[in-house]
This record gives sequence, structure tokens and C-alpha cells, in this order.
Amino acid sequence: MRADVHSIPLIAAGIDTYRQPVVYMHKDCHLCRAEGFSSLTRVGISLRGKSVVASLNVITGAPWLTPDVAALSDAAWNHLAAKDGDLGTFSHAEPPASTSVIRAKVYGKRLGEAEFKSIIGDVLAYRLSDLDLAAFVTSCVGDRLDIDETIALTRAMQQAGQTLEWGEDLVLDKHCVGGLPGNRTTPIVVAIVAAAGYRIPKTSSRAITSPAGTADTMEVMTPVALKIADMRRVVEAEGGCLAWGGELDLSPADDLLIRIERPLDFDSDGQLCASVLSKKAAAGSTHVLIDMPVGPTAKVRSTEAAQSLSARLAAVAVAIGLNLRVHRSDGSAPVGRGIGPALEAHDVLKVLRRAPDAPLDLCNRALDLAGALLDLAEDDGGKGRSRAERILESGEAETKFLAICEAQGGFSEPQIAPYHAVEMATVGGTIASIDNRRIARIAKLAGAPGRKTAGVLLHKRPGDTVERGEPLYEIHAETSGELDWARDYARSGPSALQIGEEP
Amino acid sequence: MRADVHSIPLIAAGIDTYRQPVVYMHKDCHLCRAEGFSSLTRVGISLRGKSVVASLNVITGAPWLTPDVAALSDAAWNHLAAKDGDLGTFSHAEPPASTSVIRAKVYGKRLGEAEFKSIIGDVLAYRLSDLDLAAFVTSCVGDRLDIDETIALTRAMQQAGQTLEWGEDLVLDKHCVGGLPGNRTTPIVVAIVAAAGYRIPKTSSRAITSPAGTADTMEVMTPVALKIADMRRVVEAEGGCLAWGGELDLSPADDLLIRIERPLDFDSDGQLCASVLSKKAAAGSTHVLIDMPVGPTAKVRSTEAAQSLSARLAAVAVAIGLNLRVHRSDGSAPVGRGIGPALEAHDVLKVLRRAPDAPLDLCNRALDLAGALLDLAEDDGGKGRSRAERILESGEAETKFLAICEAQGGFSEPQIAPYHAVEMATVGGTIASIDNRRIARIAKLAGAPGRKTAGVLLHKRPGDTVERGEPLYEIHAETSGELDWARDYARSGPSALQIGEEP
Repeated sequence: MRADVHSIPLIAAGIDTYRQPVVYMHKDCHLCRAEGFSSLTRVGISLRGKSVVASLNVITGAPWLTPDVAALSDAAWNHLAAKDGDLGTFSHAEPPASTSVIRAKVYGKRLGEAEFKSIIGDVLAYRLSDLDLAAFVTSCVGDRLDIDETIALTRAMQQAGQTLEWGEDLVLDKHCVGGLPGNRTTPIVVAIVAAAGYRIPKTSSRAITSPAGTADTMEVMTPVALKIADMRRVVEAEGGCLAWGGELDLSPADDLLIRIERPLDFDSDGQLCASVLSKKAAAGSTHVLIDMPVGPTAKVRSTEAAQSLSARLAAVAVAIGLNLRVHRSDGSAPVGRGIGPALEAHDVLKVLRRAPDAPLDLCNRALDLAGALLDLAEDDGGKGRSRAERILESGEAETKFLAICEAQGGFSEPQIAPYHAVEMATVGGTIASIDNRRIARIAKLAGAPGRKTAGVLLHKRPGDTVERGEPLYEIHAETSGELDWARDYARSGPSALQIGEEP
Repeated sequence: MRADVHSIPLIAAGIDTYRQPVVYMHKDCHLCRAEGFSSLTRVGISLRGKSVVASLNVITGAPWLTPDVAALSDAAWNHLAAKDGDLGTFSHAEPPASTSVIRAKVYGKRLGEAEFKSIIGDVLAYRLSDLDLAAFVTSCVGDRLDIDETIALTRAMQQAGQTLEWGEDLVLDKHCVGGLPGNRTTPIVVAIVAAAGYRIPKTSSRAITSPAGTADTMEVMTPVALKIADMRRVVEAEGGCLAWGGELDLSPADDLLIRIERPLDFDSDGQLCASVLSKKAAAGSTHVLIDMPVGPTAKVRSTEAAQSLSARLAAVAVAIGLNLRVHRSDGSAPVGRGIGPALEAHDVLKVLRRAPDAPLDLCNRALDLAGALLDLAEDDGGKGRSRAERILESGEAETKFLAICEAQGGFSEPQIAPYHAVEMATVGGTIASIDNRRIARIAKLAGAPGRKTAGVLLHKRPGDTVERGEPLYEIHAETSGELDWARDYARSGPSALQIGEEP
């Protein structure tokens, strides 16, 4: 018997700790006692050549775990590809090499590419604890990663996963920094750009804290969980796709860092650049347009912040061989009328179908972005916007969008929720502003994004006049309970739509 | 029904997450679905006026939790003083006010006392997540707390718990910064100082990462889990006590921060000062001696580091009204012969009993410290050391020690473990050094501190000569399995006692 190692049968705990590997062992387990394991001990577990470092939770009184087995959280179980009764080999986990690198960064040292690779490697091998990751994220806040460090981190993240190759000089992409509710331009932009004959293999994320991500919205119209082979087939056939990026292993460390970055919510220009550009580079993109909404409740809050972030994005793009342009836009209010997966899909389809009631702001934003992306690809003196308009107005974009959906597995018309509650203006006046945060919260309480048709439908926008008793917005829900829930919240504080003086 | 709040029966999960409140809810729980809770959502739970913020773990496949109840980890269960079936009220937890204070510190702002109080208040109310705490700890590394901030943090920590009052001008105390294995001077110092007629109501901690804390060692000889009333009675009767501080609510935030600081293991002079001095001030001490071992494997590694830390301790002590002296000592090797609760107790008793084989280094260190503490109390020109010697040699210290133990509930002679393994020198020479870390690890694998008589007994110390085949040290264990375990580790790498050239 080798010291420090020992084996015990594994079972699935069936507990989702959100990607944190946790092992549950009974307080009377011989391995706990012999090894001196106690709660939060970092325990190394290996099985058939795979290994993971898990935090220990000691079972003090629960009947579901006996002392002769160890239970693993979903993250640990899946990472080890374990089956019930597999014999796991346990050891005290020595701190991984990158903890000393993180320590150096915490104390102010500049890191190089090899050092970032060591951190990213340990992130992906699940060797770092949440506390280690929080310390790393904290050490990178604001401008504490300089440009060279940002480039090194971007490269380390990109190279840690799969890289797609398209065999073309022009592979277009877009990304929006810090979403506004309803800002669902991507399906329209992809349809226009693909209809113009360009390659745009777009991958998007699902919502993490917002009422809908592009992947959630697309999913009400077509399958989005494509494997790489399917994605490639769609793009070969139609020039573009609208896939969920979650299963493609592009810059996989990003997702593991985001689970720490989101709750801490520290802004780090360096980590934002590395997150966005490592994914774009891994996706094989050559020309990337960044949509940067600027406004008091947007991610980027001032012109100065936008300039600094733009300069950093540009420098990193040059270093890793991407053509990049930043498009600044108004970030003061939600875009379109619908907020929630299906409600946003209706807005997107209305724009593509040139419906008379299509939301003009969403249409104009999508045309601005498609035009800027065409200009970036061709550099032909700003004719992109008018070309984008022609493609949309002619119906070519609509045709392309439906063809992409067909290639992904078929198009479905989005549905409408069965329960609605209309919120009326209690005074007359002009809509002064919309509280993005409150509107998003109402949509989430109504069930978005899990309930596809749930959300908020805006009847009024900033600048609109409203009379007392006129509808301001509707809450949509799939159950009456959720409708009540969202409406109670909506009525519990100031209105999400602020009404100013009668004009 | 108020929006954002809802009730559900609570059960105990019986899971020790080491003081982190966690709530386990079934993925089909109506509350999860209605509220949009998902794993790691911060959930506010209140019950009969108490409340806690817990991180959610979603139960995806375990049979022990049904969708109609929510299970709480030990920390959350105990904090709410819940009973099976109590109806907990659930809500989305808004980030507590102190997260913006922590953010400010992370970005480099200096904090004042009100701001530290807001952090400490939220720590004690279990409103901050482990990630928030890790960010706070990271923001205070090295010298990033200045002296004023250190004073403010110390005050905030002290005032957050109970403060003991002794109604005397001289209440003595000692503290060792960064323990060396076996450095168990405290029982001897307390016995001498109390025998000299001073008040020394000493509280100590249990081991967290070491093979024994003073409370663990004392516990093999006498009860240490005293309530405040018992502690006061013992101190009134005997002048001193040797109690475990764990149940006394002195600077309670310290324990909650330590659970984050230990695994991260970042050095922060500011947090170290605040941790030590907030506890001393809360314990009602007026005169505090700090034992600061300096050596390559000790907590304080250089003369410069010792000077800087000493200056900070002195400045904070002045500000909070403590008389403080720092005593630097040699931190290069373990102290005494035993490492582990009972083995260290034997060393302590041999010194107190003036046994011919009493470890001289432990004796001299204890006399140095007792002398320095007497000098600090009296300021009578350095006569403390000789007075301490007289008290030890006369047997007064032994008598006082036994009287304190009797007052705490009775004295028991420490036992000896049933299983021993002797490690022999494989070459002759002089002991060049002892690897403190390896020796501590062997003692822990043998079962210390949980198994009271387990540990390591050193036969040789640095500078001793040794012949091939002579014993270097013994491993003591309570089971043969643990003995094998520790011995296998001891033999798996370089010896813990390094032997140099034959002299």
C-alpha cells in the first residue's frame, strides 16, 4: 500500500454544485479517519487515468451515505466519467503548481504566457478551488492585467480547447459586450451577412443572468445544440449558422472562470478581452465586429471606459491575428418590444419579414451592425449599410434565415404564452426612462428563460407619451402562479417605466 | 403573498460544509421553479427572526430529498436554530451592502472603521459568500491594509463579539505567531505567571492544520470547553485558566475569516494583527506578549519581516489600549520531543515536574516568555526571568498547574499510544535540520490531533550526532493501520531528519 492513497467505491450524489467538484464522505469512513480528511479538505480522486480535485463535505447525519462509499457531485462524477461502484483512488491533493502563480499575481507580479497556461491548465483539470479562482479573478480587476498579460491570457485560453478551421480568408463574427434586454440583433445580422455570401459560423451562449440569450431565443425556432460536424454541414450549405456554443469546447476555461466572475461581478477589461477574443479565435473567425452599447445601466458606462476597452480589444486582436472593429451603440434602454426567448423571436421574425409593426430600433441596430461587418470584410468605403438594407428589404435575409433553420433541423413558429397581465399607466406623461434591471427581473420572475414564452412585452418606449390607464407593458407567463409572482414584484416598488411630466 | 418570498418546510441535510451555509432543493421544487433558483443562487432563508444567506445546490438525482422540502447544511441549520419541519421563508438574496465595500477595497480604496464594520457584520450574519470573502482576503494581502485600516479592522472585529471584563489593571496574555511543532510553552507560562500572582485568563485554539493546538494538548489533562461563567470562576480562584476559546464568542468573525484565509494561505500583516489583537482585546487582556519564532519554515521568515510585523502590532496595540511586547525566538526546528496532543502534554509535565529528562529547549523558551511577560507587567528591570526560574524550580508552577486543572474539572495523566514504530538512521552523522512540515505531516497521518496519543516522538535534534542504526524518532498511533499509514509516508521520500557529514 502506498502512503497517501487509498481506494473506495464511488456513487453519484445527484447534487448539482454548479461545476464545483465536491466529494461527500461519511464522518466514520475509514479513509476520512485514516487520512485525517475533514470538511473542505482538498481531496484528489482518480479513476481510469482521469483525475479531479474535489472539496470534501463530511456527512454528519444524513441517512443516504454509508461509511463504506464516497459520493460525488455531478461535476466530479461527470468529469471522471464514473459509474456506480467504480473504485476511486483517493489522496491528499497537494496544492497545484498554479497556486503559486496566482499568489504571485495577487502580490502584483506580471505574468507571462507560460504562467497563464499553468493556471488555465489547472482550471480545466478541476485542480483549483473556488477560493483560488476567486483570488485569481480578484487579482485581475480593472486594469491590473496590462496589454501583454491580456494577450498572453487570451492565447492560453484559446489554445486550451478546440480550434475550428474553415479554410477561408474571411470568416465573420460579431459579439455584443454586455447585453441590453431584447437586443437580439444576432439572428438578423447572421441572416443578412450569410445572404450576402459571407461565411459566419455564429455560436452563442444561453442566458446566465439575463431573461434570454441568443441561443435561448433561437431554440424556440430551431435546434441549436449542434455538434461540430453538424455545424460544419450547416455552414457549408448556408454560409452561416446560429448554434449554441456550449458543446463545442471552444475556450472551455472561459465557462469555468465565468461561474466565479459572474457572482463577484468585478469589471476586468483584461478578462473581458480574453474571454471574448479567445472564443472568437478558437471559432476560427478572422473578422470580428464588437457591438458595445454605452449607457448608465449597460456594462460599459462612459465614453472613457468605451475608449479604453476598445483600445485594449484592438491591441489583443492585432496580436492574435484578428481583424476587429468596435461599433458603439446607445445602451440606455431595452431594444425591441419583447423580453424573453419567444417574445424576442417574434421581434426578430417581424424585422426579417418586414412586418409593418416590426420594432424599428431593433431593425436599425441590426442594419448598423450588418453594415459595419460587411464594411469590415470588404473595406469598400462604407457601402455596407445600404447593402444590408437591400438584402433585408428584398426578403433575401428572411429566406436565408429560414434556410439556416431548416439546415439546423427545421423551423418552428414561436408560440405565445397563455397568461397575460397588462400593467397600466397610473398617471399621464412622457416615458422618461426604463429600468433595464427591473424589467429583466420581471421577465425572469414570469419564467424566462426556462419558460420559453414567458417574459415582458413593452407597449411604450422612452420618449413615448402615455395617458392615464393606457397599457405600459404586458407580463406573459405559462402558469397563473408565475404571472402573479411577477406582477406582485412589478407592483411592489417604483414602476419599471418612469413617467415624467406631461409634455 | 408578497413577491420574492415563499415558504417551505426545512429538514437537516446532515452535511458539514465547514461553516458555509448551503441549501439543497430538488430540481422539481415549486419554489426553485417559480423563483428561477438554480445552483449557486444566493438564497435568503428566514425563520423566527433569524436569517441566513445560503448557496443553493440543486438535487438532480438523489433519492433523499423530495421536491416539497428544502434541506440545510449543518452551518445553515445551526445558525437558524431550525427544527425538523419548521417553515422557512425563502427569497432571492440581494447582494449585502458590504459587497460594494469589498469591491472598493479590491479596486484599491482605503477603508474606514464603519466600512470594516459593515463587512464584519455581514460576515457574522452569514450574508457573504465564500467568493466574496476570498475577494476580501485577497484585497488585504501583504501590506495592502495600512496601519489605520489595520486598527479599524481590529476594532470592528473586537466589537462584533463579546468582551470580557476582569475589573483589574493587569490582565496578562501571550500569543505565538505561527506555531512550530511541539512549541507548547503556554501551559508552563500560564502556570508560572499565575503562581506569581497575576491574572492570566488564557484562551487557546484547537489545531486547524497542525498536529496539535494548545487546547488539544490541555484536553488530554483537563476539560477545556469552559463556558464564560466557569472560566471566570477558575480565574477568580487560581489567577489563570487554560480554556478553549471556541465557545466564548470572542472576536467571532475571526474564525469565519480563518476558514477562507487558511486554504488561500496568503500572508497579510494587517489581517494577522487584527486577528490576534481583536481576540486579546475582547478577552479583556491589558498586557500581551507576542512570541514570534523566526526561521525559514516558520510563519515569519526573516528579520525584516519580523521588524515590520512587530512595528504594526505595536502601533495597533497602542491604538486599542493594549501594552504589547514582541519576543523574537528561534523558529528553525520543532520544540521539545513530542508532537501530538498527549506527547506534548508529557513534555509539558516533565518541565513542570523538573524531570531529569525534561526537554531543555521547551523549558528555556517557557522561562524566556514567562520572564518577558513578568517584565512587561512590572517593568522592574528584567528580573522576570530569574523570578520565573525560581517559581518553576520551587514547584510552585507545578502546584499551580494542577490547581488550575482541578478547578477546570480535574487532572488526568496523559496516556501513551499502544503502537510504536521506530525510525532508524540509515547513515551516521550529525542532524543538520528537521523538516517541520514533514514531521507535522507524519504526526497527522498517525492520527494527531484527533487520536490524542498519536504523533511523533523525536530522539534527535539538530546538532546531535547519530550512528547508523540509532533511533531518529518514533511514530505513535492508536491503530496498526494508522501506524502503517504514517510510516509508509515517512519512508516514501527524504527523511524528515536530515543527516549531514560525519563530524
